[in-house]
Amino acid sequence: SKTYKIAVLAGDGIGPEVTKESVKILKIIGETFQYKFQFDYGSVGAEAIYQTGNPLPDETLALCKNSDAVLFGAIGDPAFDNNPDAKVRPEQGLLKLRKELGLFANIRPIKTYASLIKKSPLKKEIVDGTDIHIYRELISGIYFGEKFTDENGEYAYDLCKYSREEIIGITHLAFQDAQKRKKKLTLIDKANVLDTSRLWRKIVKEIALEYPDVELDFMFVDNAAMQMILNPKQFDVILTENMFGDIISDEASVIGGSIGLLPSASIGENNGLFEPIHGSYPQAKGKGIANPIASILSAAMLLDYLQLNVAAEKLRQSVEHAIESKFVTVDLNAEQNYSTSEVGDFIADYI
Amino acid sequence: SKTYKIAVLAGDGIGPEVTKESVKILKIIGETFQYKFQFDYGSVGAEAIYQTGNPLPDETLALCKNSDAVLFGAIGDPAFDNNPDAKVRPEQGLLKLRKELGLFANIRPIKTYASLIKKSPLKKEIVDGTDIHIYRELISGIYFGEKFTDENGEYAYDLCKYSREEIIGITHLAFQDAQKRKKKLTLIDKANVLDTSRLWRKIVKEIALEYPDVELDFMFVDNAAMQMILNPKQFDVILTENMFGDIISDEASVIGGSIGLLPSASIGENNGLFEPIHGSYPQAKGKGIANPIASILSAAMLLDYLQLNVAAEKLRQSVEHAIESKFVTVDLNAEQNYSTSEVGDFIADYI
Ligand SMILES: CC(C)[C@H](C(=O)O)[C@@H](O)C(=O)O
Ligand SMILES: CC(C)[C@H](C(=O)O)[C@@H](O)C(=O)O
Repeated sequence: SKTYKIAVLAGDGIGPEVTKESVKILKIIGETFQYKFQFDYGSVGAEAIYQTGNPLPDETLALCKNSDAVLFGAIGDPAFDNNPDAKVRPEQGLLKLRKELGLFANIRPIKTYASLIKKSPLKKEIVDGTDIHIYRELISGIYFGEKFTDENGEYAYDLCKYSREEIIGITHLAFQDAQKRKKKLTLIDKANVLDTSRLWRKIVKEIALEYPDVELDFMFVDNAAMQMILNPKQFDVILTENMFGDIISDEASVIGGSIGLLPSASIGENNGLFEPIHGSYPQAKGKGIANPIASILSAAMLLDYLQLNVAAEKLRQSVEHAIESKFVTVDLNAEQNYSTSEVGDFIADYI
Repeated sequence: SKTYKIAVLAGDGIGPEVTKESVKILKIIGETFQYKFQFDYGSVGAEAIYQTGNPLPDETLALCKNSDAVLFGAIGDPAFDNNPDAKVRPEQGLLKLRKELGLFANIRPIKTYASLIKKSPLKKEIVDGTDIHIYRELISGIYFGEKFTDENGEYAYDLCKYSREEIIGITHLAFQDAQKRKKKLTLIDKANVLDTSRLWRKIVKEIALEYPDVELDFMFVDNAAMQMILNPKQFDVILTENMFGDIISDEASVIGGSIGLLPSASIGENNGLFEPIHGSYPQAKGKGIANPIASILSAAMLLDYLQLNVAAEKLRQSVEHAIESKFVTVDLNAEQNYSTSEVGDFIADYI
């Protein structure tokens, strides 16, 4: 049977601690379901800068290109955050990796857990039952367009550019997902101002003809930022460009009450990268208090990507069992709580 | 004594109804405080397109340039919203007016009213006491940079560009306001990705040296979209570029529980424009149910701009009195409510 090669890039801060739990669980899943996983480790982010001067060393990139999927921890380090003039930055490692692997679609599921809803800053009746899949274009737009700063620092620009090819792939993925769900797709854009947004609308409308069972609507990004809080349940699948997706998906992450639960998948033609939405959270590093669930649910998305769907489903059930049993880290339960590895063990034992 | 020339651009949808209340109240304030106001009306938006084919007719622009301040209603019409291919659009009138009048700073105060807090989608303990001034750059950035769509509709771009001059003016305004408040200024940007954001950071840091009593901090826009919901009370004055300001300020508008209360000021060297944050709300047009308070509080910001601060303060007190007396429109009180003009009269009578 096939051996699945998984590149593990644990990265900075709490990245290594939470990724360790996911690897532990994937190993158990391998034993239980008779899958062969091979784990190969690479460095990325601040950790890689300290070791090699490069936030994405060539060996790491080669490792990822040779893998079936990448399990990613987190990047970011206060030493760089507090120094905006730093020429080499941890984030560059992630951005370059996304581009090199062609990970055009970033998918973030947003849902609520009944037992955690009281932790939401929003009222229960607003958020209860929210279930959104956000599709964010990840390797084009203003992130990767031409950039320029004049030598005197008097002016600068960033170019937001989109071509048809850059829009088509993610749009099909989003429609296909909507077909399996509530059959509603909302394109978030700023078509009353931006030419790129009008291009998105035009192409998405064309592609919509291939999915007549899916209802398509459009929402300006400013209104969407309101609607996400006023009535998140109106959304099913959201499709949007890179920069708007960055903002709207982070905003949506507050709905469930804990960012420590939210996974993401970044999908390309030949590879996928799976990472928690939360950052490197350096204050918590090494304390054993980091919530491993976002990473573990990212591992579940990795299993889905490898079409090991039964195992993915089992893993998600185990996570829900841990949450319902209140066997969780301190961010979710201040009174009685468990360490990162205890939560990982509890979830592993249930598989 | 001086005659203040006020251009009134009521615009579309509920714009005329709510603007009428503000004009009525400004006339009473003129009588009470012995100020001479001259009101001159111009057309803008969809209404102007229907009349002249132009969302900002030359006469309207000339009228505004000749005025001391512009009282603006709302623009937008479903006929255009549902037709993204329309070449002439209501929004163009507003964007051109901002640019022609040089209105570089859009200021949006966000606050809560104790008696309305239960209408917020957020929990009381999160929002109670929020008091933020958002400064959004309004006539540069991706809104006004070069735009292009190729003739086959295969690719498009929008250029986000900033120069030092375009950043300095609004930055000083924001720091000066912070000095009068809690002395905290947060620059929202995406300096880990964008050259323009790094230019903003650099220049804002330089200008900060002139305001040593103000604490300056930086926040990435994705994190800011989370923080605005998790803990809005951490913000005092927010400074940001055009596109981020559009998104973040609309998001922040949910905090108080009603967008029908939120005013804005757009300030330039020689003119100011004052408009409610809400749109044209066409469904409510002509029904007498539109909340006039956002427009009336915009009129209060207009008075401040004309340095008629005592009158502005009195007007704000009258509005608070109406809110506390629950003499409000249906959006704020479903059981017992009053019409647009009844609320306007109540506020006028208290002056
Ligand atoms: C770290 C940063 C460059 C990145 C982004 O903006 O894409 C992050 O915010 C994310 O959303 O994964
Ligand atoms: C109507 C639209 C062009 C405008 C903008 O994006 O600036 C509006 O959303 C606003 O914030 O005043």
